[in-house]
Amino acid sequence: MTTTQPTAAPLASLAREEQEAFLAAKREEYAALQAEGLTLDLTRGKPSSAQLDLSDALLHLPTTTKDRSGADVRNYGGLEGLTELREIFADLLGVEVAQVVCGGNSSLTMMHDTLVHLLLHGAPESPRPWKDEPVVKFVCPVPGYDRHFTMLADLGIEMVTVDMREDGPDAEAVAALVADDPSIKGMWIVPTYANPTGSVCSQEVAARLMSMPTAAPDFRVFWDNAYAFHHLTEEEAKSADALSLASASGHPDRPVMFASTSKITFAGAGVAVLATSVANKTWFLRHRAMASIGPDKINHLRHVEFFGSPDGVLEHMRRHREIIAPKFAAVDEALTTALGGLGIATWTRPTGGYFVNLDVLDGTATRVVRLAKEAGIALTPAGSAFPHGRDPHDRNIRLAPTFPGLAEVRTAMAGVATCVALAAAEQLVGAGPDQA
Amino acid sequence: MTTTQPTAAPLASLAREEQEAFLAAKREEYAALQAEGLTLDLTRGKPSSAQLDLSDALLHLPTTTKDRSGADVRNYGGLEGLTELREIFADLLGVEVAQVVCGGNSSLTMMHDTLVHLLLHGAPESPRPWKDEPVVKFVCPVPGYDRHFTMLADLGIEMVTVDMREDGPDAEAVAALVADDPSIKGMWIVPTYANPTGSVCSQEVAARLMSMPTAAPDFRVFWDNAYAFHHLTEEEAKSADALSLASASGHPDRPVMFASTSKITFAGAGVAVLATSVANKTWFLRHRAMASIGPDKINHLRHVEFFGSPDGVLEHMRRHREIIAPKFAAVDEALTTALGGLGIATWTRPTGGYFVNLDVLDGTATRVVRLAKEAGIALTPAGSAFPHGRDPHDRNIRLAPTFPGLAEVRTAMAGVATCVALAAAEQLVGAGPDQA
Repeated sequence: MTTTQPTAAPLASLAREEQEAFLAAKREEYAALQAEGLTLDLTRGKPSSAQLDLSDALLHLPTTTKDRSGADVRNYGGLEGLTELREIFADLLGVEVAQVVCGGNSSLTMMHDTLVHLLLHGAPESPRPWKDEPVVKFVCPVPGYDRHFTMLADLGIEMVTVDMREDGPDAEAVAALVADDPSIKGMWIVPTYANPTGSVCSQEVAARLMSMPTAAPDFRVFWDNAYAFHHLTEEEAKSADALSLASASGHPDRPVMFASTSKITFAGAGVAVLATSVANKTWFLRHRAMASIGPDKINHLRHVEFFGSPDGVLEHMRRHREIIAPKFAAVDEALTTALGGLGIATWTRPTGGYFVNLDVLDGTATRVVRLAKEAGIALTPAGSAFPHGRDPHDRNIRLAPTFPGLAEVRTAMAGVATCVALAAAEQLVGAGPDQA
Repeated sequence: MTTTQPTAAPLASLAREEQEAFLAAKREEYAALQAEGLTLDLTRGKPSSAQLDLSDALLHLPTTTKDRSGADVRNYGGLEGLTELREIFADLLGVEVAQVVCGGNSSLTMMHDTLVHLLLHGAPESPRPWKDEPVVKFVCPVPGYDRHFTMLADLGIEMVTVDMREDGPDAEAVAALVADDPSIKGMWIVPTYANPTGSVCSQEVAARLMSMPTAAPDFRVFWDNAYAFHHLTEEEAKSADALSLASASGHPDRPVMFASTSKITFAGAGVAVLATSVANKTWFLRHRAMASIGPDKINHLRHVEFFGSPDGVLEHMRRHREIIAPKFAAVDEALTTALGGLGIATWTRPTGGYFVNLDVLDGTATRVVRLAKEAGIALTPAGSAFPHGRDPHDRNIRLAPTFPGLAEVRTAMAGVATCVALAAAEQLVGAGPDQA
């Protein structure tokens, strides 16, 4: 999945004058890029208008205001969400309907609610509310999702990093950390098509994470399955069955799974889903009942009518794939053409999800993002995929190609490649912005 | 607004044998009531189907997916809510647009979020997060809204009660409490058509609450204006201008106002509103950004198109009034007919809101609710309007007449009146369930 194409000689292996010539050429290229006056944005994983259009039928739904039980979806109530919608997501996520809660428009909110309940009340098996612990830590695979990390930082939870690999987090490293330190209360993982690496957590890694002994009796895995159905190829990855694995190994309450339709229907007006053991769900809803009489059941019914069935969701995702797969191909093509073989960058060819993970020459990511910005191409800030925004190697850049049009992706990525090459050449020649 | 009708002699003034005859008659009435086999529900302040029907045009809106600025409401973003909707509610609530946040489908959720932020982070001027205080207390006017009290209890916040009067909370009692005790960090108030008393907080009371010195530097008034536009007569109460009064007296950050369309459009699928100083709003959104990328802006736009303008909201509320005012009249008529002059009950004739506050003979509220239940009439549990469900006089019952049809309200209230009279007679004669 990670690749460099051997189409040119590694830049580091060239003679000094060849490197200087390369640098001069890249400076010219960059000047020309700046002269184009671009305004392009690859910062966030947002669906494009064409993707949103796929769901416009939602705007005229629902056609009825009663759910299957006869309840009026316009009125109060139904804290766990519409049964019909819970059934669809139980099927898709491979869990029991009784384990599913459908909420508002954001799984991020459900994650935050879960953390808040843990902090203020603790889990049923917690010795005390997490707020009363001297310190609470989470294991965070890196690179990872910036909003996970900023949420933890805001809540005063410390972060311990492990490497994200092609088959998921480094499970042995996680197991070693959690075995002895009771202050490590949880971990975050995007198991399928991870943000930003595109990794898919294997059954083996998932099994290890669900079965490993933990010093904390109330250890929780925030299983953020945001991209479970977001395939980019016909080889559709199956998410590891975290809930069953956890239950089978005697830790049924360990995982809390999250998903949403934010990148299925409307990014701002979809529905979010939480799935966990019935005991965890009861605990979650007991505290949630203090803050809500029920989610927007009209939007639940709207989605039920729109999808029709679990298969309806999967078919819908294939239409997304048709729109966005070419953009991911364009990213790979642009990077391969400009950087292949130079030995100054590696990048992923994800088979699902929303991101390409680009690792540039150590110490140049910040420079690349600044060069791109000054050429009118907005990238996610360097380091975003690490806690507190600090990439120890300053090499990681997250590319989000879904929002711009295909031609814009091509233009932007050619520009990004120029910036990557220029920053690498500057560093190798010792002629970077600090040396100039 | 509170009344008893002198149509009969006070029960307590009758001779013993007259009281016994009254008791016997009420027992017969009650037996007949039970024989009817009713199934009626006056428990919660829920809109009826006919009220929800008023908003069914929402099901086919919005007609566009761009907001006024050209932003695509289907996509992520816009944490403070759609400007067009914020303008409508700023106008209606008498605040600045810059002070308004529009959120999801529940103002209760926005109140809970605010409390969570205060607990976990504190306000900008807090000496420390509220969770790190040895004790945090709120002043709670009683009778009040049960969900306010259960939320505080769940969050470990202690409650100190003051009386709710016809012009709002007993402001002198509040001022005396908060002047010396820095652990009293806030208070709750439903300023207009209070739940359950229907009281309207006067400008004078509001001014006192906003200007009173408080020992806590970070004192907050949760100004839950849930019924601001929910008039039952043509004499439409104007809510006190809490934000201006607070600002004028040097405490701009004291009030946080909440409102929603839960009882304007759809109870489960409306939009919620928070209004407060710009400094408070910035603080709220900074923490909210950790849990949400933005609210459901499609539902915001749907509401903007449906209402059209602030006047559109007020016109819409008049259509609600046409449906529910007769139900409130029926409550008063049933109680007056059966209980007028007996000196065993007082009740409110609210000019707005969703409730009738019924005070029965001290010590009989629990008995009345049980009698009603055994006759198939569900009432809110006695004591619900008090912290921890404990009414020190066991006399308060909240009646919610909006959900049943008019005929059902008449039937239910005649039955409730029978239960009130029977319980009172039992007590006066000394022949209650415990004595029998």
